[in-house]
Amino acid sequence: MVPTTILQKRIDILQQVLRDHSCDAALIIHKVNLYYLTGTMQNAQFYVPSEGKPILFCKKYYERAVQETPWQVVPIDNYKQIPSLIEKNNGSGQPQCMGLEFDMIPVTMFSYNKNIFPDTRLIDIGRWLLEIRSVKDYYEVELLRKSGAIMNEVFSGVPDLLQVGVSEFTCAAQLENLLRISGHQGLIRSHGFNQEIVYGHLLSGKNGSLASFNDGVTAGKGMGPYYPQGAGDKLLTENEPILLDYVGVFNAYTVDQTRLYTIGQLSETLLDAFHAALEIQNLVISNTRPGIVAGDLYEMAAARAEEAGLGNHFMGFGSSRVKFIGHGVGLELDELPVLAKGMKTILQAGMVFALEPKFVFPDLGVVGIENTWLLHQNGAEKLTPLSDDLVTILK
Amino acid sequence: MVPTTILQKRIDILQQVLRDHSCDAALIIHKVNLYYLTGTMQNAQFYVPSEGKPILFCKKYYERAVQETPWQVVPIDNYKQIPSLIEKNNGSGQPQCMGLEFDMIPVTMFSYNKNIFPDTRLIDIGRWLLEIRSVKDYYEVELLRKSGAIMNEVFSGVPDLLQVGVSEFTCAAQLENLLRISGHQGLIRSHGFNQEIVYGHLLSGKNGSLASFNDGVTAGKGMGPYYPQGAGDKLLTENEPILLDYVGVFNAYTVDQTRLYTIGQLSETLLDAFHAALEIQNLVISNTRPGIVAGDLYEMAAARAEEAGLGNHFMGFGSSRVKFIGHGVGLELDELPVLAKGMKTILQAGMVFALEPKFVFPDLGVVGIENTWLLHQNGAEKLTPLSDDLVTILK
Repeated sequence: MVPTTILQKRIDILQQVLRDHSCDAALIIHKVNLYYLTGTMQNAQFYVPSEGKPILFCKKYYERAVQETPWQVVPIDNYKQIPSLIEKNNGSGQPQCMGLEFDMIPVTMFSYNKNIFPDTRLIDIGRWLLEIRSVKDYYEVELLRKSGAIMNEVFSGVPDLLQVGVSEFTCAAQLENLLRISGHQGLIRSHGFNQEIVYGHLLSGKNGSLASFNDGVTAGKGMGPYYPQGAGDKLLTENEPILLDYVGVFNAYTVDQTRLYTIGQLSETLLDAFHAALEIQNLVISNTRPGIVAGDLYEMAAARAEEAGLGNHFMGFGSSRVKFIGHGVGLELDELPVLAKGMKTILQAGMVFALEPKFVFPDLGVVGIENTWLLHQNGAEKLTPLSDDLVTILK
Repeated sequence: MVPTTILQKRIDILQQVLRDHSCDAALIIHKVNLYYLTGTMQNAQFYVPSEGKPILFCKKYYERAVQETPWQVVPIDNYKQIPSLIEKNNGSGQPQCMGLEFDMIPVTMFSYNKNIFPDTRLIDIGRWLLEIRSVKDYYEVELLRKSGAIMNEVFSGVPDLLQVGVSEFTCAAQLENLLRISGHQGLIRSHGFNQEIVYGHLLSGKNGSLASFNDGVTAGKGMGPYYPQGAGDKLLTENEPILLDYVGVFNAYTVDQTRLYTIGQLSETLLDAFHAALEIQNLVISNTRPGIVAGDLYEMAAARAEEAGLGNHFMGFGSSRVKFIGHGVGLELDELPVLAKGMKTILQAGMVFALEPKFVFPDLGVVGIENTWLLHQNGAEKLTPLSDDLVTILK
C-alpha cells in the first residue's frame, strides 16, 4: 500500500501545477496515473480540484478501492454522474477548465467528457503528470532498489540457462519463469501508443541486429509478425553475442537491465564495441548531475562512439538507428526523462533512468550494456547492482 | 503470414462498409486492426481509400513491413508526410471524410490528424472494424482451433500442479510456464481501456469471490493494488473450488477456457451450482444459431439461474454482479459479440465467443465453466475440446 503521506505529497504537487496553469481541476482516468495518485487501480476516475480535497469516483469495485486509497471514495454506476456529484460532494460548481490525459485516453472518452462537462474547457495534462512522475519519491526509490536487487539475484541463474543448440525462445521462457516466481508482475506497462513487450529481449548472433516496430535499439525476430520482437526459434551457437535486455517489474516498479553473454569467445570487433559501450556508460554517468540537459548527454555519448570509429553502429545500424541513449523508468517502461538528441529536459535529483549504450553489427548481432540509475545531488546511484562484465560460458 | 487472399477479402469488406457510410477512406493506426488488415504490426499507418489500392505508410521498420504485407509500403520519417504522399501515390486529393479508430487512439493522435488533414471530416470507425472482425474467416478459424487444441494439451498437466499447501501464485507461475513453452504469446491484448490480464486467473476458495476493477466475473486477490486480480498468496487447501480461467493466445489468436478443480470434495451447494452452470451452457449453446439476438441468450441464461434458485449468485454476487454471460474473442480478449443484457447484436455464422456461466458464493468461492465456440449455420462448434468435468484430485 502506498503511504498516505506520499500520496498527499503527490496531490500537493499536482495541485500546485494546476494552479500554476490556471487549471481548476484534473480528472485522472488512466490506470497508471490513477495508481500513482490514489494507490488503487480499481475502475474509477479521480477528481483533483486545484485546491481542496480530491474525490475518487469508483464504478467497480468500491469495497476494494476504499481499502486501498486514503481519499474519499464515492460509488457510482455511471461516469456521467460525476458532474453532479462534484457539486454535491465538493460544494463547488463545475470547473471552468479541467485537465485530462490526452496522451492516454481514447477520443471516445474525450467526447464523453466534453458531453457531460459542456461548459468546461478540457485541456491536456498528460505531460505534466509525466513530469511529476519523473522525479521519484523515497517510497518509489526503495521499490526500485528492490527491483534491481531481485534482477541481480535472478540473473545469477542465467549462465545455467544458456546452452548451445537450445532455442532463444526456450531460454527466454525459462528466464521468464525465474523472474515470475521471484514476484515479477508478468506485464510491463508502456506509455507509448502501440508499444508492448513481454519481459524483454533475449537475442543471439544476427537476431540481435534485426530491427522492428518498437522504440528501442534492439528487437529480434520474435514469434512472428504478430509479436515481432524478442526471442525466436534461432538456436544458440558458440562464439556469438547473446544479449539479454530484460525489464524487471516488481511491486509495480520497473528497472531495465542489459547484460552480454557468450558461449565460447567473441571476436575482437565485438569485444572492442562492448568495451566502448562500457566506456560510454562511464563517461555519461560521470557527467550526469542535476542541471545537465538530457540532449547533451546524448551528444556526449554519440561523440564518443564516433571517436571510437563506431558511429555507424551506435544505437542501431542503417535506417534502424535510434537517436537516444536512455529513458526514464518507473510505473511504466518509457517515462521521462528521455536521453535523446535535442531533448531539453534538465535533469533533477530523484530522476530514475535506464542508460543503454549499444552497438549493432549487421549479421554479427548486438553488444552493449544497460543499467538503471537514480540521480542524486552529487551523482548517480546504480540501481541494478549485477556486474557489468561480459559473462563467458564455457563450451 | 496471413494469406493475401484473406487480407484482400478483409479490405474488400472494409471498403464496402466505408462506401455504405459515404466515408472516403480509413486511416488505421491501432496495431491490432493494422495486423488484421495488413498482416504486419510494424510502426505504420494504413490508408484504405473506399475504392482502389490501400497504402501502408511505414516509419519503422520498412524492410520488415515489406516482407510481412502484400500491400504497397511507402517508407516515411514522419506521419505528417501522409497527406502529401496520399496525393502523390494515390493520384487522389485529400479525403473529404476519413475514418479513425476513436475507441483506441489517444486524443493527441486525433488532434495531430485534425491538424495535418485540415479539410477532412474525421469520423469514428472503431465500431465498424470490431464488427468486421467479429465474423472470423477460415484462416482465423483454423488458428482458433489450434489454440483450443494447445489449451487442451497444456491443461492435461494441471492436476499435477495443484497441491495442498502450495500458493495460488506458485501454481499459476508453473502453468504460465507450461503455456509459454507451448508457444503462448505471453501477452493478452484487450480492447477495453484500462483492461489488462496476465495469462488468466487461478482462484481458490474465497479468493474466487473477491471482485475487482476488471470487466469479468472473477478477479481474485492478485499481487497487490498494482495488479489486483488473479492468483495471490493464498495456499491451496482441501475441499475448496479451484477455478482456472485462462486465456490461450497462440499465433495471435485467443481462446478463453475455464475449468473447475478440487483437491478432495466439494460441498453440495457448490456441486449443484457447477451442474447448473453446465446446464446453462448446454441450454444457451443448443439455442445459439445465426439470427438469434445476443441479449436474448443472456436472458435465457439468467432465467435458468433464477429457476435453479441461484439468481443471486449468477455472474457475481451483490454489487459485483455483471450482466453478461459471454464475449467475442479473436486477436483481442474482448471482441464482439458481447452476450449481455439488452445487447441487440444478431449472431452470425463465423462469430466466435467465449460463454462463461459462473456462480459466486461469498467466502466459498466461484464455480463454473467456460468454453470458446464457433457459430456455424447449424449450431456451435466447441473450440476448446478439454472435458468440461470437474477434476477431482486425490488428497
